[in-house]
Amino acid sequence: MWPHRDFLDLVGVELPIVQAPMAGAGGAAMAVATCEAGGLGSLPCALLGADKVRAEIGVIRQQTKRPINVNFFCHTPAPPDAAREAGWRSYLAEYYAELDLDPSVAAPGVSRAPFDEEMCEIVEDLKPEVVSFHFGLPAPALLDRVRAAGCRVMSSATTVAEARWLEDRGCNVIIAQGAEAGGHRGMFLTDNVASQAGTMALVPQVVDAVKVPVIAAGGIGDGRGIAAAFALGAAGAQVGTAYLFTPEALVSDLHRAALKTARDDQTALTNLFSGKPARGLLNRIMREKGPMSGMTPGFPTAGGALAPLKAKAEARGATDFSSLWSGQSAGLCREMGAGALTRQLAADAARCFEAMAPAN
Amino acid sequence: MWPHRDFLDLVGVELPIVQAPMAGAGGAAMAVATCEAGGLGSLPCALLGADKVRAEIGVIRQQTKRPINVNFFCHTPAPPDAAREAGWRSYLAEYYAELDLDPSVAAPGVSRAPFDEEMCEIVEDLKPEVVSFHFGLPAPALLDRVRAAGCRVMSSATTVAEARWLEDRGCNVIIAQGAEAGGHRGMFLTDNVASQAGTMALVPQVVDAVKVPVIAAGGIGDGRGIAAAFALGAAGAQVGTAYLFTPEALVSDLHRAALKTARDDQTALTNLFSGKPARGLLNRIMREKGPMSGMTPGFPTAGGALAPLKAKAEARGATDFSSLWSGQSAGLCREMGAGALTRQLAADAARCFEAMAPAN
Repeated sequence: MWPHRDFLDLVGVELPIVQAPMAGAGGAAMAVATCEAGGLGSLPCALLGADKVRAEIGVIRQQTKRPINVNFFCHTPAPPDAAREAGWRSYLAEYYAELDLDPSVAAPGVSRAPFDEEMCEIVEDLKPEVVSFHFGLPAPALLDRVRAAGCRVMSSATTVAEARWLEDRGCNVIIAQGAEAGGHRGMFLTDNVASQAGTMALVPQVVDAVKVPVIAAGGIGDGRGIAAAFALGAAGAQVGTAYLFTPEALVSDLHRAALKTARDDQTALTNLFSGKPARGLLNRIMREKGPMSGMTPGFPTAGGALAPLKAKAEARGATDFSSLWSGQSAGLCREMGAGALTRQLAADAARCFEAMAPAN
Repeated sequence: MWPHRDFLDLVGVELPIVQAPMAGAGGAAMAVATCEAGGLGSLPCALLGADKVRAEIGVIRQQTKRPINVNFFCHTPAPPDAAREAGWRSYLAEYYAELDLDPSVAAPGVSRAPFDEEMCEIVEDLKPEVVSFHFGLPAPALLDRVRAAGCRVMSSATTVAEARWLEDRGCNVIIAQGAEAGGHRGMFLTDNVASQAGTMALVPQVVDAVKVPVIAAGGIGDGRGIAAAFALGAAGAQVGTAYLFTPEALVSDLHRAALKTARDDQTALTNLFSGKPARGLLNRIMREKGPMSGMTPGFPTAGGALAPLKAKAEARGATDFSSLWSGQSAGLCREMGAGALTRQLAADAARCFEAMAPAN
C-alpha cells in the first residue's frame, strides 16, 4: 500500500515510520515496541555511556528480531571558555537568588558526547541494521568502519546543501528535518535558524536534490502528516513528539503534563538549555532570556548552569527552567503505547491514501 | 478527482488553487489568467486607491466570467511616532552617507490602507464572489455589509486560536498560513513569529479546530504540495511564490532574477520593510540590521526611510535595500504563464493522488 518502497526495501522494515531518536526520552522499551509493530525503532545514545549503550542494544536484541536504528550525535564539542561560562552564570544570578541557591555549586552540563572510537567498536560488534547521526557525520575513518559493519547510515539535513553534503559522503537515507521538529536541529553547515525551511518546503526540494530515499521529519503528528510526507516525495516519515505521549517515553511527569495541554503556538527554538538551537515548549526562562540568546556557552555545556535551577523548581512543581522538548504537532497527539501508536499512524496514513484516491 | 469538494462547491471554482493576493506583485492580468484556468484568481488591493481598485475589478470582469477574490488588509495603522521615526532614520544614516543621499528627503512609507467605507462601497457595488482579508477581519459593521453583498469571506490564520476567532465571526473559509509563506504574516492575535507553526503542523490542527473549509498556505510550490495539503485535511491550497515567476507578476527584474536563483535556506522573516514581519529573500539590510529589529516604526510606515536607499541601490543594480518577498519554495518554481501554472499545479497534484492510490 505504500507509494514508495525505497526505504522499506533498503532497511527491511514493514512500515515507513521512524521513531525519532530522542536523547533522554527514548530507551530500549520504546525502540522494541516500535520495531515489533513494524516501524523502525531507534535508540538515542547521545546521553549514554558505552556500557549503557551496549546494555540497551542487548535488551533490544533480546526482545525483537527486527531491524533497529542506533543514533549518535557527532558534533564537535565547543572548547571550554571560562569567561563565557562565568558570564552566563552571572546572567542567571537573579534566578539563583530567587530560588535561594548558591551559584558556585552549579552542576556541570549534561554530558552529550560525540560518536567516537569506543562507540564505533560497539557498532562493529553489535551491528545495528541502521546507524543514524545528528549534526552531520563522524570523521571518514569512523564512518567507513560503520559502513564496513554492514550498517545503513542515516543523517539529518535541515537544508538542501546539507542533504547534498550527506549524499556525497555516502549517507544511505537522508532525514529532511523541517523547522517544525522538536529537540535539537540537525543543522551542521549553518547555525542560522531564521532561514531554516519548514517541512512542506524542505522535503520536495531535498527530494529533487538527492537520489537516496528521503524521510520527512518535523510537524508530523498523525497519519495525515505521513500521507503528506509521501505526497511531497518522501519515502517515509520520522515521528518524535507523538512518541513522547507513550508510557515508554522517559520524560518527567511535568514534561508529560505540559505536552498534553500544548497548543500549536507554544513552542520555540531555544539555545538556552544546551548552546545549540532546539525546539521546546515555551516556559519562563525562554520568555525572559530567550528563546535564543547570544550569552550561552557553546554546545553542550550551557545546561550546566541551569541544572540546579531546574532541579529546585521541578521539586516545587514548576517547569520554569526545564527543557520541555516538543515539536509543533503536540496538539495532534494522544496517549497510547508506542506499539499501538506505530500501528495507528500506519492505519491512519492508509486511510488518507484511500481518501485521496482519484476514484473517490 | 479532488478528495474534498467543500471549497470548490462553496466558491464555484473548478480547481482548489487560490492564487495568493500579493500586494504590489499581482494585478488584473494575473487574476484573469488564473480564473480562466479554473483557479481562484485574486486581486490584492492593499496598495491601491479606490479608483484603481474599481478599474482593476472592471478589467477582470470584462475578461472573465469566473468567480474572483478581492483582497484587503484590515490592520490598525500604527499612530505616528516622530521620535521612533527619527530614531529609525538615524539608525540608517550610515547607508544614506554611503549612497550620498540626504536623509532629510526620505520619502513617506508605502501607503497600505486598511479596508474602509470607500472600499466597502466598491465591494457592495461590484460584488466579487470572494473577499479575503489579511490581519484579521474589518469592523463588524463593514464585515456585515460585505456578507450582505453576497460575498464569501476568507481570512488567514497563523495559529489555531486565530482560526477559531475567524470562524466565530463568520469567516467562510480559513487560510491556514504556515511559517513558510512569503510576504506578510496574516497574524493578528499575536506578533510572536518565533512560535508560529509550519504548514505541516498548522494545517491539521486548524482542520481539527474548525468546521469551515481550510486552505493550506506556505511552502506550497508545486503539485506535490497541493496533494500534501489535501492529505493534511485541507480543501485546497493557496500558492504565492510560484505566481511571482509568471510574466503577469508585477515585480522588478532584480526581484525576478533573485527568485530564479533562490535556494531553500535564503529567506527570513523581517520587519525592516514595513514594521510587520514578512518573509523575503535575504539581502544586505536584512543581514546587517535584522532580519527582525526592535527599531522599526509601526506598520506600515517603516519602509519610508528605506525608499530612497532602495531606489538608488536598484538604479545601480543592487537589491541591498529592496523587499524581495518570497516564500521558502522558490527553488521549486519555474517560469511560465499564470494560466499554464494553474493548470500544471492541478495536473501535477492529480498525478500525486494517482501515485498514492492504494492499488499501486
